Amino acid sequence: MTTDVQEPKYAALRAQLESDIRAGLAPHDPLPSERRLMSTYGVSRMTVRQAIGLLAEDGLVYRVQGSGTFVADPTMISKSLSLTSFSEDIRARGMEPGSSSQQIERVEAEAEVAQDLGISPGVEVIHVERVRTADGSPMCIENVWLPAELVPADFGTQSVTSIYQTFEALGIEPDVAEQTIRATVVDAAQAALLDVPPHSPAFVVSRVTYTADARAIERGRSIYRADRYDFRLSVQRRRRP
Amino acid sequence: MTTDVQEPKYAALRAQLESDIRAGLAPHDPLPSERRLMSTYGVSRMTVRQAIGLLAEDGLVYRVQGSGTFVADPTMISKSLSLTSFSEDIRARGMEPGSSSQQIERVEAEAEVAQDLGISPGVEVIHVERVRTADGSPMCIENVWLPAELVPADFGTQSVTSIYQTFEALGIEPDVAEQTIRATVVDAAQAALLDVPPHSPAFVVSRVTYTADARAIERGRSIYRADRYDFRLSVQRRRRP
Repeated sequence: MTTDVQEPKYAALRAQLESDIRAGLAPHDPLPSERRLMSTYGVSRMTVRQAIGLLAEDGLVYRVQGSGTFVADPTMISKSLSLTSFSEDIRARGMEPGSSSQQIERVEAEAEVAQDLGISPGVEVIHVERVRTADGSPMCIENVWLPAELVPADFGTQSVTSIYQTFEALGIEPDVAEQTIRATVVDAAQAALLDVPPHSPAFVVSRVTYTADARAIERGRSIYRADRYDFRLSVQRRRRP
Repeated sequence: MTTDVQEPKYAALRAQLESDIRAGLAPHDPLPSERRLMSTYGVSRMTVRQAIGLLAEDGLVYRVQGSGTFVADPTMISKSLSLTSFSEDIRARGMEPGSSSQQIERVEAEAEVAQDLGISPGVEVIHVERVRTADGSPMCIENVWLPAELVPADFGTQSVTSIYQTFEALGIEPDVAEQTIRATVVDAAQAALLDVPPHSPAFVVSRVTYTADARAIERGRSIYRADRYDFRLSVQRRRRP
């Protein structure tokens, strides 16, 4: 395994394990044990755990308590409690994110959009509607509203790729998103955009994204194909008075 | 407001606010401001926040960042990252939990059940299948598998109400559950059980519940009506190397 001096050991091991998985393992195959990986790659248990943690965050592997770590099904994208963009999710799985159609308009915020973004109704917002693709195949229909004052005046005159990259280039750091997840069935128009049969199941995810100082920077509403997406969460018991 | 000396102030305020909501507020109405509640009930801001926190955990209210707290729609049950049982969710909303049909059998664990529960295939498990109801109205189809050794030999000879209560009476404390959430459409048989049209959207929630010492005590697979359930989550941005 080649190790760049700039790169932490666990990041190098993560890359190595990713290529091992792609080269020789099938979905739901077990990964070698921690001990085996330690001796194969001459690294510490901590490094193995950090590398596997990164693979799990990226959805390439999943853990089963008491049983070990297994290769994820690459056709499914499992969302976690980590706030990641569509582009990041797709790239992490070795596919190329894109958009098969994109409409960008500047509009006056309707009441619901304004409330979510903490601005007055009628204030200018940018509305982006896109069908997002992975290696050209449609994955979700995404609607996003941004306060127009956040982005340069020429935003949207060219095709937008990652809105998070746009934010980060402007020094605006997404920190947390409040999400509501519903189950639905797609109508005929949505089915055509997503290339699935009408009435197929889908998730509707409504989201408001905030910076660390609680400023709303983005309101999103995405329709995800249920045959390509699921959600994996740990839920914790709380003691009550 | 009557205050039991045994009961913390915030629990008493939670109960008072619940009755205020039921008496006079409609879904999506705003709650009075923290300041107003402090002066009306002569309590500290901390007490107000704790009481509202409990109401939010129970799904009776929801918060909108920058706007305040609003009365939740009581026909929707919003699941959070708090591990709560069906019975607890329904009682928290002032309804009576029940089961419209219940089948309990002792079977040998199949491979997938055994793997989830960390036992050998063929070991005896108890399988409970129920249609869960709120005030008699069907809400979800629940399948649960438990290791038979965890519960008394007469378990299931009588009707089971809350499995979590059964566990807690045995000194077994659920601590965390790993959940996978999928979207689906119900088939004709499921539709009849749930009293919804065939092909209605639904969530499939697969769950393994563990004690604090990582022992698997329950494997569940529930189908929830999407017109009565959603999921609300905060997702956090993580810095990557």
